[in-house]
Amino acid sequence: MVHSSLIDGPAPAVRDKNLTELEYLAVSSPLNFADGHARQNLTPSQMQIIDDLPRLFRECVQTPVNELERRAISSYFTLLGQQGFPTGDKRVLSCYSSSVAMEIVARALITEVSSLMLLHPTFDNSPDILRGVGMKLVPLAEDQLHGDDLDPALLASVGALFVTTPNNPTGRVVSRDRLRALAGQCARHGKVLVLDTSFRGFDTRAHYDHYQVLEASGCRWMVIEDTGKIWPTLDLKVGWIVTSADLGLPVPKIYSDILLGVSPFVLNLIGRFAADAAAGGLAALHRFIAENRETVRCALAGIPGVRFPDPTNRGSVERIGLGTRSCLEVWQATRDRRVYVLPCQQFYWADPPVGGNSLRIALARPASSLALAVGELRSVLLAA
Amino acid sequence: MVHSSLIDGPAPAVRDKNLTELEYLAVSSPLNFADGHARQNLTPSQMQIIDDLPRLFRECVQTPVNELERRAISSYFTLLGQQGFPTGDKRVLSCYSSSVAMEIVARALITEVSSLMLLHPTFDNSPDILRGVGMKLVPLAEDQLHGDDLDPALLASVGALFVTTPNNPTGRVVSRDRLRALAGQCARHGKVLVLDTSFRGFDTRAHYDHYQVLEASGCRWMVIEDTGKIWPTLDLKVGWIVTSADLGLPVPKIYSDILLGVSPFVLNLIGRFAADAAAGGLAALHRFIAENRETVRCALAGIPGVRFPDPTNRGSVERIGLGTRSCLEVWQATRDRRVYVLPCQQFYWADPPVGGNSLRIALARPASSLALAVGELRSVLLAA
Repeated sequence: MVHSSLIDGPAPAVRDKNLTELEYLAVSSPLNFADGHARQNLTPSQMQIIDDLPRLFRECVQTPVNELERRAISSYFTLLGQQGFPTGDKRVLSCYSSSVAMEIVARALITEVSSLMLLHPTFDNSPDILRGVGMKLVPLAEDQLHGDDLDPALLASVGALFVTTPNNPTGRVVSRDRLRALAGQCARHGKVLVLDTSFRGFDTRAHYDHYQVLEASGCRWMVIEDTGKIWPTLDLKVGWIVTSADLGLPVPKIYSDILLGVSPFVLNLIGRFAADAAAGGLAALHRFIAENRETVRCALAGIPGVRFPDPTNRGSVERIGLGTRSCLEVWQATRDRRVYVLPCQQFYWADPPVGGNSLRIALARPASSLALAVGELRSVLLAA
Repeated sequence: MVHSSLIDGPAPAVRDKNLTELEYLAVSSPLNFADGHARQNLTPSQMQIIDDLPRLFRECVQTPVNELERRAISSYFTLLGQQGFPTGDKRVLSCYSSSVAMEIVARALITEVSSLMLLHPTFDNSPDILRGVGMKLVPLAEDQLHGDDLDPALLASVGALFVTTPNNPTGRVVSRDRLRALAGQCARHGKVLVLDTSFRGFDTRAHYDHYQVLEASGCRWMVIEDTGKIWPTLDLKVGWIVTSADLGLPVPKIYSDILLGVSPFVLNLIGRFAADAAAGGLAALHRFIAENRETVRCALAGIPGVRFPDPTNRGSVERIGLGTRSCLEVWQATRDRRVYVLPCQQFYWADPPVGGNSLRIALARPASSLALAVGELRSVLLAA
């Protein structure tokens, strides 16, 4: 049994923290399986890029930043099947991260709409950023998102639809047909469709050309892309805001309040990592994540009550259903063993208790440390 | 004469742009003297750090990020005389940039106060970010800021005081005695004092220990620090939010909505650049900027009507008074020669015409290209 002092001990404090605050507790720990950042080892060809950093730096001094940006965008978007990305003036804006991109998107949205429909569950910084600018949120359950047409009355009651695909933590992907239907419904109802595709790098099912579908739909749209999840570049990354030509929201203006642009060094680095990924690195990453997922599932198989609620997930995180165990108790017990994971309550931003019996574990980690962590988690679960 | 088509030509469009949008026009130009980013050449010892980037990267893999962050903060703050910076939990938060820091500060402030007093003139992204979250702004003229006690009725009418020191573009520095008086007044009136010290690296008059003064004052305060202005690190930089222990605003919470932390690679790099600066690099930078300022002043001396309104400025930008010439016309004429500077109207965010006859030129550039640019500017001014 997890010792009972935990029940009225740290649990309430943990419940009040957001997921990033819980990730922060883990950030300097060698057994950090909390955040979704890419912390696996560099591959040999990635190490060669790192050995080449001085030359990458000097290249930036000699190359116009617009050119480095154009190359980074082109190589990253096409790597992930997004050939139809727009190339017009200010249609793709480079940000320090996907969350900075989301803050700008939220600030732009709130100038026109006061409420939106947001996927449920999803990582809690999406609802927190949106609420932070004053947005009212209506939860959209995943089964509804992937089912038939959205309730017209519900859609009519909001100004926009915000969807994370692949979703975090469930890994569910909006298919091409489903995106076409959603964008069509948004077009007919005059709603803005916002996609956060930060985790798409891991899942080829999200590599169909979203921009082709969006451009054909006639709806107003924004997409947030992110290089920050797939490569162990020590959080040297870019988040992009991509917008429809007819969006009519002050995205470039608000962008210019926050930044002039991102580092040309980071853009150059991303171009190099994307080229390496196109030459086989991306497929190797997919195999690596699949093997780590298998490590988790095998090690925990057969423990009473434990299950994996996202069997088709290919993302770099895995949810673990705990049966009747409380995720906060298991979280605390694994933390006592210096292993950090995430409780899932906070992903259910509109109804936290629904997530009260599952954990999320990060897979973009060295295989050896993952095996160690899962061994500890297994011990905790067997005792609980 | 500047050709007359300019008077009703591009000027109105330029007037509607913010300063960052104007900087963006220049960002890929070899004669970009618009933005205040550090674009001078690397010194020989800085080049050695760049040659060492692969090792810096690998060090990060082996060192807890908290330790890299502690070192970067300690070396940067003490380099600039800020020995009294707080070390408590979440008292110093690392952001991607000073503007991201300001966005978080603005979002935190608006939860408690609805209006503040803001320095006038100052770089326009400060008023734009603050207004963007819904803040009402009351302008505070520089002479008032540096004069006697602030008008108690005016101070009573707002929730906070926001001061950039050294100011951009004027370079005026709030002295120790003046900071003590301002902080004391804020303490007595229960107002939050916010300082943006992003340009302090250039001016030793801003290297007295602000934190010692603030902590002793009893007021609630925030400071934005920034490594992004002084070193040519291709915009690999950190902005910090530093807060008083009793601030009582949700800064850490809003911070956690936007980011988990900055890149350990950037933190490590900043630690190295700060050590180099402490070993003589900072004094060399000050000489370099002073020489570039002298280049500008000498080249333009004696042109009828031209003057330098900020004789004691030590920052990396210089204002040029144009007499009766319109800054928009001169800006356009220099732009026609592929030289980009900034018109000063937008710095006067509450009264743009006041800045209508001055330009800002960036000094953190290679001396040779600055000489070329100033030669072009001289030709334009002699013809106008």
